[in-house]
Order: sequence, then C-alpha cells, then structure tokens
Amino acid sequence: VSPGAEQSPVPERAQVVGLGLISSSLALALRGAGWYVSGSDIDASRVGRALELAVIDAAGEDATARLVVIATPVAAIAPVATGILSSRPDDEGLVVTDVGGVKGQVVATVDDPRFVGGHPMAGSEQEGPDGADRLMFAGASWVLTPTKATRESALATVRQVVRALGADVVELEPERHDALVAIVSHLPHLAAANLMALAADASEEHAVLLRLAAGGFRDMTRIAAGDPVIWPDIFRDNADAVIAALDDLRERLDEARRILVEQDRDALIELLERARRARRNLPPRLPRPESVVECRIPVPDRPGVLAEVTTLLGGIGANIRDLEIAHSAEGERGVLVLMIDREATEAARTALTAAGYHPAFSRLA
Amino acid sequence: VSPGAEQSPVPERAQVVGLGLISSSLALALRGAGWYVSGSDIDASRVGRALELAVIDAAGEDATARLVVIATPVAAIAPVATGILSSRPDDEGLVVTDVGGVKGQVVATVDDPRFVGGHPMAGSEQEGPDGADRLMFAGASWVLTPTKATRESALATVRQVVRALGADVVELEPERHDALVAIVSHLPHLAAANLMALAADASEEHAVLLRLAAGGFRDMTRIAAGDPVIWPDIFRDNADAVIAALDDLRERLDEARRILVEQDRDALIELLERARRARRNLPPRLPRPESVVECRIPVPDRPGVLAEVTTLLGGIGANIRDLEIAHSAEGERGVLVLMIDREATEAARTALTAAGYHPAFSRLA
Repeated sequence: VSPGAEQSPVPERAQVVGLGLISSSLALALRGAGWYVSGSDIDASRVGRALELAVIDAAGEDATARLVVIATPVAAIAPVATGILSSRPDDEGLVVTDVGGVKGQVVATVDDPRFVGGHPMAGSEQEGPDGADRLMFAGASWVLTPTKATRESALATVRQVVRALGADVVELEPERHDALVAIVSHLPHLAAANLMALAADASEEHAVLLRLAAGGFRDMTRIAAGDPVIWPDIFRDNADAVIAALDDLRERLDEARRILVEQDRDALIELLERARRARRNLPPRLPRPESVVECRIPVPDRPGVLAEVTTLLGGIGANIRDLEIAHSAEGERGVLVLMIDREATEAARTALTAAGYHPAFSRLA
Repeated sequence: VSPGAEQSPVPERAQVVGLGLISSSLALALRGAGWYVSGSDIDASRVGRALELAVIDAAGEDATARLVVIATPVAAIAPVATGILSSRPDDEGLVVTDVGGVKGQVVATVDDPRFVGGHPMAGSEQEGPDGADRLMFAGASWVLTPTKATRESALATVRQVVRALGADVVELEPERHDALVAIVSHLPHLAAANLMALAADASEEHAVLLRLAAGGFRDMTRIAAGDPVIWPDIFRDNADAVIAALDDLRERLDEARRILVEQDRDALIELLERARRARRNLPPRLPRPESVVECRIPVPDRPGVLAEVTTLLGGIGANIRDLEIAHSAEGERGVLVLMIDREATEAARTALTAAGYHPAFSRLA
C-alpha cells in the first residue's frame, strides 16, 4: 500500500468475492475509477472470463485490500465475511460490505464494526462477468444498513464508494430494508406469479382466455417471466417480512371481497382513487427529476409510430431519458409516456404537433 | 334502402346509440367502409362534435338502420336494446349488438333472436368522438356472445362486420366471457390497486419505500393509474365472476403463505416455473404472428438508447410492430423486446451488431 493510499479516505485496493453480474459490474466500475481489483469465484471459468474481459486485475484473494465486497449467494455471505474479518483482526482500515438482497440475518450474524451491509437496487437480464456494465449503478438506489455497532469511518468509506459509482445512498435499518423490499419487490413477484398461474390454469379449460389478455394483464405478469433461480433463497431469507406483507395483501383482498359482495361503491371508489393518486405520484426513477419533463402522447399501436416519435425527438436533439407505454385496460392502444430533457420541451412540442401528434407536457419537480 | 342493399349480406345503414370512444371509432370505421351511420348521445355536445369530425353522417335515430350498436353505459344497454327491437317487431333484417364489457345480464335480459351481445377488447386513454380512431379494432379480439336463441343470420352479419374492421371474432357464452375477463382484466385491476394502496400506506410511515420501487413494481401497478370511472359499474355488473376469480386468487395466496411458512421449496419452484412458462407462452398480441420475429436486446437505461435502436431499425426499413421493456426485478436495466417484420431479421441483426448491441431473434409462430 502506497503512502498516498493511507492518506486518502478512499481505499485503492478492493477484492470481490463472487463474480456475478452485480459484483462484476462493481469491479469494472471500481477499476474505471482507478482501483486495483482482485476477484474470486467458486466457478473457475467465471474468474477466467473476468480476467479475459478485464473486469478484474487479478484472480484470488488480496490480504491488503481495504475494501472487500461479498457477492456470494445470501446463505454464504455471513460465513465468508466473518472469515475475512477474523483473518485480519487488527486491521482497522479494512472495510467489508456485501450486495445481498436480504439484510437482517447477515447483519445480525456478522458482528464486526468494520462490516456494512449493502444492497444495490440494480440488475439486468444478463449474468456474470459477461454482463458486467460499469454504468449499472448510475442513478440506482443503493441501500446501506449500518447498525449501532458499525464504525462511522467504515460507513463513510462505503458511502463514498457508492456515491462515486453514481448511486444514491439510502440508509436503513436491516429489518426495515427487508420489510420494504418485501412490499415493493418480493410480494409483487409472488402476486404476479399467482395471477399468471391462475390464468394459465383457467386457460387449460378455456384456451381462448389468453387471447383476451390485453396490455394491462401483460404488464402485471411481466416479472413472472423472469428466471426463478434467485427467488427460493429470497423467500427463505426474508420469509417473515414477505409473510407480513402477504398477510397485509390478504386482508386487503378480504376487504375487496366485502366491497364486491356488499356493493360498497364508495369504498371501491376510495380504493381506486387512492391507488391512482399514489401510482401517479410514484417518484420518477431518474437522478435529477428537475431536469426532465414528462411528455404524454396518445398513440395508436401502429407499425412505425414508436420509431417515428423517437426519431422525431432524436432529430431535435431531445434525449429520451425514460419511456413507458401506458396501455388501456382493454386493447393495446395507449399512451407513450416519455421523459425528455426539460430544455427540449418547446422544440418537442413543435415537432410532434407538426407530425400530427397531440403531446401533453408536465414537470416532475 | 336500395335494392342493392337488400341483396347484400352486409347492411349499409347503421346507427350507434351513445358516442363514446369505442362507438365513435366504430362509426368512423363503418363510414370508412362505405356505410351510412347515424348516431345519438344523451350529451348533445358529443353529437355535435361527432358531426363536426365526420364521425357520423347524421344525428339521431335511423328507423331503417339494419345494424344498431348500443354503446351506452352497461346499465342502459338492455332497456335501450329492448326498446329498439320492440319498436320494429316485424323487421327481420334488423340486427342489434352492443359493446358492453359485461355480458351475462344484458344477454339474458334482451331476449330477441335479432340481438347479438358483443365486446370489442379495445380502447385507449382518450374519450368520445375526439378520440375516434378508425383503426382501433385492427388486430383486436372482439368477443361475440350468441345464445341458442340468436338467429344465425344476425350472428353472421355481426361477425362479418367485425371481421371487416380487422378484428378477430371470439365466440363465447355470455357467462364464459364474464368469467374470463374477470380473470384477465377485472381481478388484475383489483390486485394492482391493492398492491399500490398497500405500498402507499406503508410509505406514509417510511417515505423511502417508493424510492426502492423498481421497474417490476411499476409494471405491476401501472393499470392502477387509470381513470377509475368505468370500474364501479364493472365490479357491480360482473360481481359474481370477479368474486369467483378473487376467491381463486385468495386460495392461491393462502397456499403461498403455507409455502413460505413451511419453506416448501419444491412447491415454490413449481409455482414460479409454471408462471414463467405461461407468461413466456402468452400468445402475441399481433394479427399475424407468423409474419414477425421477436428481437431481444439487452440495453442499459441510458439516454438515447431507445432512440438509437428505433432509428437504426427505421433506417433499414424494419417496422417495429410492438415493443416491451422487460425490467429486471431490481433496478432499471433491462431488455428491449421488439417485434419486427420477419423479413427484416438479417438486416436488423447486422445493423444492431455493428452498433455494438447483442440482439437475439426468435420466431413467434
């Protein structure tokens, strides 16, 4: 370790344990920021691939690494972290963090002031070093779960690294993190799978059923199409929080049943209005909402419309920062919801209107 | 009526009762096919607007219309249809149909061989004559619900009209229709509203919750953002079928709870695998699946990527027939899923690869 590194608040040598998608992307991003990164994986071919793609500088452990990131399956995080921390008992500069999707058990087990639990809310359909993307964390939320035992300097180090990768730090108690991701990620996944399975079962008797499935149904069940491989561990490690969220949903569906049976129109409207307001007020998934404007364009689902709109906007230099297609409840007609740079608003309005579209613009912040 | 019209199997004069989005689009489409269309609405301004926009030829009733389409709110369909049918008791050429979203009660009440219940699975975010789109039904499923009492010639007429508008006829018993749309439309809407309300309630205590909501949660709750105005009537008129579907979902969630409590990993994997297969096998929402190819492109959520991809494809003349953004469970990275004309496959592969993308192509049929 050079004298410069000792004075810098940011460690310059890092080690990642496990070379999955997230940790490979992290390694690549760290290397891009000038770090020296070692990496290991129980799968030797992944290590080879990571070296080949220059995702890591070296294979294996690095007993001098200041930052160690554990990116193994959740069940292995605590033993691996404990092993590394106990092998360097007097190394006060060492900081260990992890990227597991469930935090309570890990944080409770790894009882060391140099450990900071973490969970970057990022991912893609790809896997391993081949999917590594150094920009994966730009604009993402990255949860850190320090406890009272966590050393402030260790937390500061991880916080600084996370911010340097372009992510937003969200600090939460471990149990709070688990309860919240149960609500916005794990329960929705379970609900999507069950809605899809219900429709699939019904379609065995009535094959025509799925021909009636329009955009809304597709949106609701889309996540059920993903690879199930990560879910058994999540539903094991976060079972309590998922059960609590599930019980909340079950109570709400009991109440929905009462509303339907008693034809309680007021309660129904209240539910739907509340959900509508909340959905419309979801914070934008953009780093700087004040810099963009939302553009809603009713569009027919005709060949070429999407290309035409995006080409029009490209032609005036308006970057499309995000795009959703809001389907109607039945049928496929819908509204293109685009986020574009705010300064492009008037040019976009002119270009789209001239092409026969009826765009409506609104600010996000 | 001209002698020619009497010989033709397709009636040439139509009347629409109610000038909402669907019936205005239908009127426009019929006019485009050479029909003479009269229209009425209890809102005089809508009638005026429909005339102004040439959505209809004339305002008011047409006692010589061969085809009458009832597009009032669901509660009024049966009385209006009965009124028209009974005012022309001996008119064997008259055919009356409707476009209501719930069929059982209406079809049971309007007891006349000249009535054919219908439900075009189409719509958009727009309203009334201003939103009329003559291509709204191209490629859409259009349910018809004839009964044993329905005259074959009446059914044949409606079938022919529906097909002429580019829609696919799906014939179902009225109760079957109601049960199926409860599963693919009404229950998902109720589930989305409750998932969103659950998250909104939890976010009152923990404001950070919604910052953790990634693409999957957004997809699942998107339909909850729609205007609630149509839903109270649907949940009233189709209460029985929705309750049955809801009870099915509640049972499945009870089973999901058991799986979580007992850590029944095999049952969990079976559920997730079944849902995954079913979602991946959802029939494409395209008129001719054999003419298109699915193109999956992993993309970072970076400014300009969407415009770049669509512009690239536009440049080689590949029409984008459909587009989805498949988000990962956490984070916003994802996969662009595009449907393009099959003959453009090789050109698209070359252009996308040259630009640094990694597209994968697969046939749909």
